[in-house]
Amino acid sequence: MSNPVLVEVFRGALVESRHHGAVAVVDADGATVLALGDVAQPVYPRSAVKMIQALPLVESGAAEKFGFGDQELALACASHGGEPAHVEVASRMLARAGLDGAALECGVQWPSHQDSGRALVRSGAAASALHNNCSGKHAGFICFACAASIDHHGYVAVRHPVQREVRGALENLAGVTLSEDQCGIDGCSIPTFAIPPAALAHGFARFGTGRGLSSERAKAAARLRAACAAEPYFVAGTGRFCTEIMKVFGPRVLAKTGAEGVFCGALPEQGLGIAIKCQDGGTRAAEVAMAAMIEKFLPLSDTERGALSCFLRPTLRNWNGIEVGSLRPATALQL
Amino acid sequence: MSNPVLVEVFRGALVESRHHGAVAVVDADGATVLALGDVAQPVYPRSAVKMIQALPLVESGAAEKFGFGDQELALACASHGGEPAHVEVASRMLARAGLDGAALECGVQWPSHQDSGRALVRSGAAASALHNNCSGKHAGFICFACAASIDHHGYVAVRHPVQREVRGALENLAGVTLSEDQCGIDGCSIPTFAIPPAALAHGFARFGTGRGLSSERAKAAARLRAACAAEPYFVAGTGRFCTEIMKVFGPRVLAKTGAEGVFCGALPEQGLGIAIKCQDGGTRAAEVAMAAMIEKFLPLSDTERGALSCFLRPTLRNWNGIEVGSLRPATALQL
Repeated sequence: MSNPVLVEVFRGALVESRHHGAVAVVDADGATVLALGDVAQPVYPRSAVKMIQALPLVESGAAEKFGFGDQELALACASHGGEPAHVEVASRMLARAGLDGAALECGVQWPSHQDSGRALVRSGAAASALHNNCSGKHAGFICFACAASIDHHGYVAVRHPVQREVRGALENLAGVTLSEDQCGIDGCSIPTFAIPPAALAHGFARFGTGRGLSSERAKAAARLRAACAAEPYFVAGTGRFCTEIMKVFGPRVLAKTGAEGVFCGALPEQGLGIAIKCQDGGTRAAEVAMAAMIEKFLPLSDTERGALSCFLRPTLRNWNGIEVGSLRPATALQL
Repeated sequence: MSNPVLVEVFRGALVESRHHGAVAVVDADGATVLALGDVAQPVYPRSAVKMIQALPLVESGAAEKFGFGDQELALACASHGGEPAHVEVASRMLARAGLDGAALECGVQWPSHQDSGRALVRSGAAASALHNNCSGKHAGFICFACAASIDHHGYVAVRHPVQREVRGALENLAGVTLSEDQCGIDGCSIPTFAIPPAALAHGFARFGTGRGLSSERAKAAARLRAACAAEPYFVAGTGRFCTEIMKVFGPRVLAKTGAEGVFCGALPEQGLGIAIKCQDGGTRAAEVAMAAMIEKFLPLSDTERGALSCFLRPTLRNWNGIEVGSLRPATALQL
């Protein structure tokens, strides 16, 4: 089954580029509300499932034991920009377990937030694993292990107890059995298991509502949702899609980006989960598709509609700041 | 007409992402040697035609008047990384016309070469238009204007005499009439006219061979080809596809990237021109497709085949340097 064009990139009067992809919107009972393209073909969810991957940290009581608040929990779900406040919270999480950045196994990454990267250079310091966009998730993994008296060393390996727990949470939420045959290594070295968008959307409907989950798991999901809604800056960072969308909509929208054009999210009040895969890996198109799903399924005030428009039809500007084009939802997304 | 999958992105055992696109290979008489996908649909060539856009600078005698050597001419064709040597040559070009970076109308861009960007931060200096990847092309435009006693101010405008000359060169090489109806504004603020890949490939076959061109134009094309082959570092920069490919193959391959997944080039000895558009704008896929065209049409020694392999099937590594996947030419490119 082929994927439709989801997003067109205009320059002047012409479409310069186009992005194909699949979109699934599913309710907590698993009923398909919308399916565009091949929503049954497994895709690597990458960082789009960090909220689900953070469930064991909360469910196990580790987060409570270490006194984690909204910032720590939001950062455990984050692909952050490596801004100073992100690094500070990741350090704080590890310190609660008596550790520091040396325990992280995610690898060194320069801050993706450009100004923070330049400030780091000016300070004379080097980039570290704490600046890695996944450092909050990894700090969460390590703290989960420490609270459960599991040796945290090697926690990124597919058969380490930490990843077994994470995998179990994904299987439970998405309603699938995950296989090492369909498993890749993520940018931060943890396993990423391929899951169909339809199942990911179902998983996010459950995450967003708690329906179909154990009471402990539903409670943990609600705690993580509240943390992301309260501290959206810690889920991504300055000017980033996930942060800005959750700043506008608060607990009414969960939105989480993943590498290679994946987006997952939930509209808790509508009981819906959303999963998007732009087949060429284009994040810019997955963002537009996510904005289109919010426009379609969430009742919007005029103010909210106005705030959404810059994500639904982002303007492209050149080095002189001249408007040269825009991204626009293609026919398939004009629902 | 739809475009085939050109390149697949593997992670573990699965295809994580796929890129569709069009590829045209045409000889200097305009005969199609290979056409994949919709090669008749106009695409914005963006920076992939900088070698053609540099023709007026050479043909007019301006380059000779200002004493430009291989480095200056290669930089006039470049999308460079803003490395110190690139900036130095751009400054030198402008100085020959009694000007400096303030004359550039391309806008300020931080060096895309990360180490150079960090060195700039450490130096306490700010990014400038000289660091813009197009500063060499713009310096060439300005020098062309100055040598011809044309007021260089506003040289980026579509109806400025400089852009009229550039447009004329493009129309002549590609054998098309360009229309302001099918014209966008490029990242550096000059016009970019939409041209079918088949016509772009024909234009590059002419550029690579001189066939079908006036003797002055053919001579200018040969001069620019020689400059790019002699100084490929100045066409792109450290570790970049265009630079590394032209380092390996010298005058046997011309290769030039453009934004939004465009690639143009020529194999002068085979008399062939090449134009590629990855429809989603993915540069990584356009590079693989270009490498596949070199493999297909250029006789290769074992050493050359070895040197090409890392561009034909690039390895993807994560933040820990672990090999997590690769890009591979899809069936349509396995010719």
